[in-house]
Amino acid sequence: MPNPAYARLIAHWKNASLLGSTASVLGWDQEVLMPPKGVAHRADQLAMLAGEVHTRMTDPRIGGWLAACEADATLQEDATCATQVREIRRAFDRATKLPAALVAEFSQTTSLAKAAWGEAKGKKDFRLFAPHLEKIVALSREQAKCLGWAKGGEAWDALADTYEPGMTAAQVAGVLDPLRAQLVPLIQKVAGAKRPTDRFLKARFDRAAQMAANRDIITALGFDLQAGRLDLSGHPFCSGVGAGDVRLTTRLADDNFPDALGSTIHEAGHGMYEQGLPAEHWGLPAGEAAGLIVHESQSRLWENQVARSAAFAKWCWPTLAKHFGEGLKPYAPRDLFEGNNLWEPSFIRVESDEATYHLHILARFRLERAMLSGDLQVADLPQAWNAQYQDLLGLTPPNDAEGCMQDIHWAMGALGYFPTYTLGTMLAAQLWEAMARDLGPLDARVAGGDFAPMLAWLRDKVHRHGQAGYGDATALRATGSPLSAEPLMRHLRARAAEVYGV
Amino acid sequence: MPNPAYARLIAHWKNASLLGSTASVLGWDQEVLMPPKGVAHRADQLAMLAGEVHTRMTDPRIGGWLAACEADATLQEDATCATQVREIRRAFDRATKLPAALVAEFSQTTSLAKAAWGEAKGKKDFRLFAPHLEKIVALSREQAKCLGWAKGGEAWDALADTYEPGMTAAQVAGVLDPLRAQLVPLIQKVAGAKRPTDRFLKARFDRAAQMAANRDIITALGFDLQAGRLDLSGHPFCSGVGAGDVRLTTRLADDNFPDALGSTIHEAGHGMYEQGLPAEHWGLPAGEAAGLIVHESQSRLWENQVARSAAFAKWCWPTLAKHFGEGLKPYAPRDLFEGNNLWEPSFIRVESDEATYHLHILARFRLERAMLSGDLQVADLPQAWNAQYQDLLGLTPPNDAEGCMQDIHWAMGALGYFPTYTLGTMLAAQLWEAMARDLGPLDARVAGGDFAPMLAWLRDKVHRHGQAGYGDATALRATGSPLSAEPLMRHLRARAAEVYGV
Repeated sequence: MPNPAYARLIAHWKNASLLGSTASVLGWDQEVLMPPKGVAHRADQLAMLAGEVHTRMTDPRIGGWLAACEADATLQEDATCATQVREIRRAFDRATKLPAALVAEFSQTTSLAKAAWGEAKGKKDFRLFAPHLEKIVALSREQAKCLGWAKGGEAWDALADTYEPGMTAAQVAGVLDPLRAQLVPLIQKVAGAKRPTDRFLKARFDRAAQMAANRDIITALGFDLQAGRLDLSGHPFCSGVGAGDVRLTTRLADDNFPDALGSTIHEAGHGMYEQGLPAEHWGLPAGEAAGLIVHESQSRLWENQVARSAAFAKWCWPTLAKHFGEGLKPYAPRDLFEGNNLWEPSFIRVESDEATYHLHILARFRLERAMLSGDLQVADLPQAWNAQYQDLLGLTPPNDAEGCMQDIHWAMGALGYFPTYTLGTMLAAQLWEAMARDLGPLDARVAGGDFAPMLAWLRDKVHRHGQAGYGDATALRATGSPLSAEPLMRHLRARAAEVYGV
Repeated sequence: MPNPAYARLIAHWKNASLLGSTASVLGWDQEVLMPPKGVAHRADQLAMLAGEVHTRMTDPRIGGWLAACEADATLQEDATCATQVREIRRAFDRATKLPAALVAEFSQTTSLAKAAWGEAKGKKDFRLFAPHLEKIVALSREQAKCLGWAKGGEAWDALADTYEPGMTAAQVAGVLDPLRAQLVPLIQKVAGAKRPTDRFLKARFDRAAQMAANRDIITALGFDLQAGRLDLSGHPFCSGVGAGDVRLTTRLADDNFPDALGSTIHEAGHGMYEQGLPAEHWGLPAGEAAGLIVHESQSRLWENQVARSAAFAKWCWPTLAKHFGEGLKPYAPRDLFEGNNLWEPSFIRVESDEATYHLHILARFRLERAMLSGDLQVADLPQAWNAQYQDLLGLTPPNDAEGCMQDIHWAMGALGYFPTYTLGTMLAAQLWEAMARDLGPLDARVAGGDFAPMLAWLRDKVHRHGQAGYGDATALRATGSPLSAEPLMRHLRARAAEVYGV
């Protein structure tokens, strides 16, 4: 007979997740459509929910149930049960280290900070956001102290562990610094080559038509709009509200459709991962995404490997023609392809190309590490930011809205998060090479819109495994090799050769 | 020093309301934009929240706190404290009578029923909805048994008490039957007179322009769109999510702008009431709406007394011209006024005129009373519905979508609710007469768009009082007289004279 402690543990944990998923709806609502005067009440709601979920995740009975499960050798032989027990243990141990009052205060602080960030960014006035960020850094340091970190490590590690278990600042620096050493010469070579055309980036299309084209394209890739939505928000994101309800947001401009398309496909990559998780394990580790490196690998694979390719530009052209009509006539697929691969240093991370992108990440990693260690005061962030951009990208943002306030992450309290973008991008390139070994040439499939076998491969190698393992384990399982930067560098060198002839 | 039991009671109750308000967001989301495959998860979320709120509202400590407050004569001298204690007592006593399992089952049942209702209505197939309604009627009967009702009363009374404390079937029958006796001859007189023009009802306007016109008009009336929203949904409703966040929905057709305008203004009336409740008492009886009769009086006053008047048609015309441009040229304000006052029996309650409307209510009241008593089986509802419509309105709906499935209320589990529409409409007419005594001729104010003093009068006489009293008490406070049908009949006779010359 099954272990009764296991049954109780699972039921309890699922219920906590169900309560947590109501906060996902409220969070989505706040970003997408909540009226401005609702912000204080929403902060109260989210702080209360965060506290309630925390109470459930730290219920002292969980410790007893876990101990009984961990002592049950038969149970541990079942891979799914083992995943559930191991990952609930991880989450329980983390949660019990954080006092409920700190969790509630952090939630309330970030609710208000997100609103202040929006206002400060609009007014290009960092002083409106600074007190909020100061409080977030102070509370984050307090969190890190409660959580603890390995000997020789630092506060940053404790926070990063939330997003990618086991990730440390020393490891990240050990990946990003050598990556920079390979990237910078490649970017410099490209800078000396003929610039691709940006004419399609400046083409103007009706916003409703852009949205409709995006919907058609992500549907063709495999995102199920009957089990999800696509809306607009200030900062594109994907929110998995529950089984059958995965929500993407994107952003539109009158004159930069490729950016909207790339953002939408990026979020759809996250969304297809969420839609591919085993619904029967919803709310439990075996049914949840495996950390942010794997999550980002899913968005980047569709955004970079698929959608920035020449094959994709050719494939999507008839869909664009359907929605943009006469307005598309002056352009050709090559214009989209070249616009999607215009490499040059710029201010805004989310608008940057797939090569310089990682220098944006390195800047953020250095700055948040310094804020957490106390080496950098929040008041000095704008100057420090600009110094990093001068060092890494050779330019200085015209104002803080296009500088240190461009991202919502720190306002959300997400410190220790940014490097997962680069590590996930590395994993995407690595998965793509493995997929090509299994499925044969992928460009032909993309050109023919034959995305289903690609999604099926990802479902089989990644999605269905839930939290059986995180970034490193996923790389090993799906590709046979540990996570490495080499596939990403091969991808970038090949693309530089194709686009720039270097 | 203040009573510590009171402080604990208030903090506890406010927290329960805060949790309950998360369900309001989820409910709104489900009606307005949730993806179809999210319905099962949403039902789980709402059932869980209903259970959690119920647990808080039935916390045994509440009984002790209440007893201490009720024994504190000084506390009871403060009108606000007295309201809080009296109404929390009412809600606590009701909630403790309902088992948590029944509350959760009811919530889950209605989540699924709402989705099934939508599908069944779309397919015009009552059989798809019938099993859900059967379960709702059975669970409602069980609820009524738990709640109990006064001697000589019936199960319907126990449910109606949820919406309007103290309202009974016998009282309602005692109002609706005589109202019918006065209404039917007036409707017959009008049927013999010259029919007003419906030409404006058939005019076609762009939907986005209709929405923009609606937004401008409700803003002019006094609804704050910075503290609320206006969206589309299948069935228009107003949801007060919290202080600073009150959401309206409406519906649009290409060719019936007056219906959209009337629905929007109706919901905005509800919304202005919610926005006018004292924010400092949010989540507590002194900050909550006083039952559904008062709520409906606020929507009906703006919909019927204000927006169906000739003065209003004149006032809003420049706003319509701004949004509809050339398309408005063939029409005049009189066309809107006449279209808004076209009295004739029809199938659909929410499209019906302000006179025959109450016959729709009478039909529903009779049918739900019979379903609850067991005199009518759910399977026989379509036939019984059609028989009532033949009796009261002299017509038979072409199908069940336009018959017994036209309203969402029963799918939401709201039995005992419909009569508050008629009683609220009576109160609206009564408030209007009292307002005219205080402010002088109101038509001149409407014609000039001078709505602020009218809203201020309602804020002062009704909104700011929270649950100091329900329908009857509000009528007495604001008008000096008990709730009566006479002002409504005077209003309808005057309008019949103005439009039909009878």
